[in-house]
Amino acid sequence: MQKIIECVPNFSEGRNLKVIRAIFAAAKKVKTVRVFELEYNRDHNRCLFTIVGVPLDVLASVFEAIKTATKLIDMNKHQGEHPRIGATDVVPFVPVFGVSMKECVELAEKLGKKVGEELSIPVFLYEEAATKQENRNLADVRKGEYEGLKVRMNKPDFGPSKTHPTAGAVVVGARKFLIAFNINLDTPDVEIAKKIASAIRERDGGLPGVKALGFKVDGLAQVSINLADFEKTNFDEAFREVEKLADKMNVKIKSSEIYGMIPLAALVKSVKTTFKADTFKAGQILEGRLSDD
Amino acid sequence: MQKIIECVPNFSEGRNLKVIRAIFAAAKKVKTVRVFELEYNRDHNRCLFTIVGVPLDVLASVFEAIKTATKLIDMNKHQGEHPRIGATDVVPFVPVFGVSMKECVELAEKLGKKVGEELSIPVFLYEEAATKQENRNLADVRKGEYEGLKVRMNKPDFGPSKTHPTAGAVVVGARKFLIAFNINLDTPDVEIAKKIASAIRERDGGLPGVKALGFKVDGLAQVSINLADFEKTNFDEAFREVEKLADKMNVKIKSSEIYGMIPLAALVKSVKTTFKADTFKAGQILEGRLSDD
Repeated sequence: MQKIIECVPNFSEGRNLKVIRAIFAAAKKVKTVRVFELEYNRDHNRCLFTIVGVPLDVLASVFEAIKTATKLIDMNKHQGEHPRIGATDVVPFVPVFGVSMKECVELAEKLGKKVGEELSIPVFLYEEAATKQENRNLADVRKGEYEGLKVRMNKPDFGPSKTHPTAGAVVVGARKFLIAFNINLDTPDVEIAKKIASAIRERDGGLPGVKALGFKVDGLAQVSINLADFEKTNFDEAFREVEKLADKMNVKIKSSEIYGMIPLAALVKSVKTTFKADTFKAGQILEGRLSDD
Repeated sequence: MQKIIECVPNFSEGRNLKVIRAIFAAAKKVKTVRVFELEYNRDHNRCLFTIVGVPLDVLASVFEAIKTATKLIDMNKHQGEHPRIGATDVVPFVPVFGVSMKECVELAEKLGKKVGEELSIPVFLYEEAATKQENRNLADVRKGEYEGLKVRMNKPDFGPSKTHPTAGAVVVGARKFLIAFNINLDTPDVEIAKKIASAIRERDGGLPGVKALGFKVDGLAQVSINLADFEKTNFDEAFREVEKLADKMNVKIKSSEIYGMIPLAALVKSVKTTFKADTFKAGQILEGRLSDD
């Protein structure tokens, strides 16, 4: 089977549907990839989508989208709740099938070089692709945001050493597959969600690979979780930990939601862990046996 | 996507590898189906395998296997622990994708007619395909086994009204997908497994669609479960029920095992149920998005 990667570019436009659709359509110009899961948010004034396919085709597709975003978005007029430093804000490559992290890092470098040279936008490499420790964490690269870029501009990995007049800068990198998992508590008390989020997030000494925030959504407290490495902490493990912590505060879990895509391997791992089915493997799934040999 | 069914024929030979392989090879003569998961057992003196493909191709494949089994197995010489009435003992058709139970019943009738007419073996239709209430349950059809067939022969659905001189009779039918799920308890006390099995099996007032027995396997008590309808009782629900019952007897679950194949829909349902992720659907599984539209 061929190599498959995923790319989830984020752009600083979440209000003007014409612009959002133009960027999405640009990615679709490359016919050999699948472009889907377009999401946009007015408050964040930001959109993102997923590109899946063989590595070089995904690179070509996301480059088309970046070119269009560079033409249509003016960061000098951009306002939104979400931190951002550029029209194309962040572009992560993610190994999905038969591809190593190293190959995704090389792809990030290739895209970075192309964006720097052809579009004259400074590019910072982050996470697995980072060349400097201080650029590893996306939040650190974005500190000061677009407005702060001009004054704190350190040497980017590719492109000019000054921000692009309308597109700012771009953060490109490689990371593991990220599972978005929300847990809704049976209480309107957002403080409880915030306490639980703080207890489980890695940064505060919680579970490895876990990022978490507490929100109020549709009148209920929600623990919104990003699992950056499901091999370390999977959704089922996060669920049980939240359940345990909520239980101590006499709160029940009302529902949960896997947001967006999830790799089959994470489902298989959850069955192995939660039901102690150590020998279970993806090859036992009937539908899979219809296509592979 | 095309219609897909599964067929799991059982034959009365579990010792002579030459015969087992000949039957398996006969099924493989039809190149458009997948034939796999060959299992055989000396004590039961019985083998079975799985055929997956489009309905009429699966029918052609299993008919080849039945023809070969009829030639090579002499029931007058057969001994084994497992109940059986024929060389080809039982042939269930199972809907997998885009196929209704009704279509599988019609397929069972088609195969039954063909086996009766072309091989001169009496055929009884069972379970969803049964034409008589007393033939619905496989255990009832097999009562008295091969040896008792001659004396209690009632009118079969197809074929002659007397048993085939060497092949006996065949039971053909249609049923839902069956998940085999074993739960190993952290105790050597088989009586505990038997108590739990009795408490969860439908026949004794337990969970719908659940068949269960208690065994001792590798020195540990095992609850061996067949889930005849995972939409009613899925493996995760059976796991939690066994866990609860074991807990009352101060016994822990050591491990579990999904034996053989499982439909993706059962995995998806387990995530929905166990983690209250009501909105989760198979379309969110990344690998699936690579192939369908």
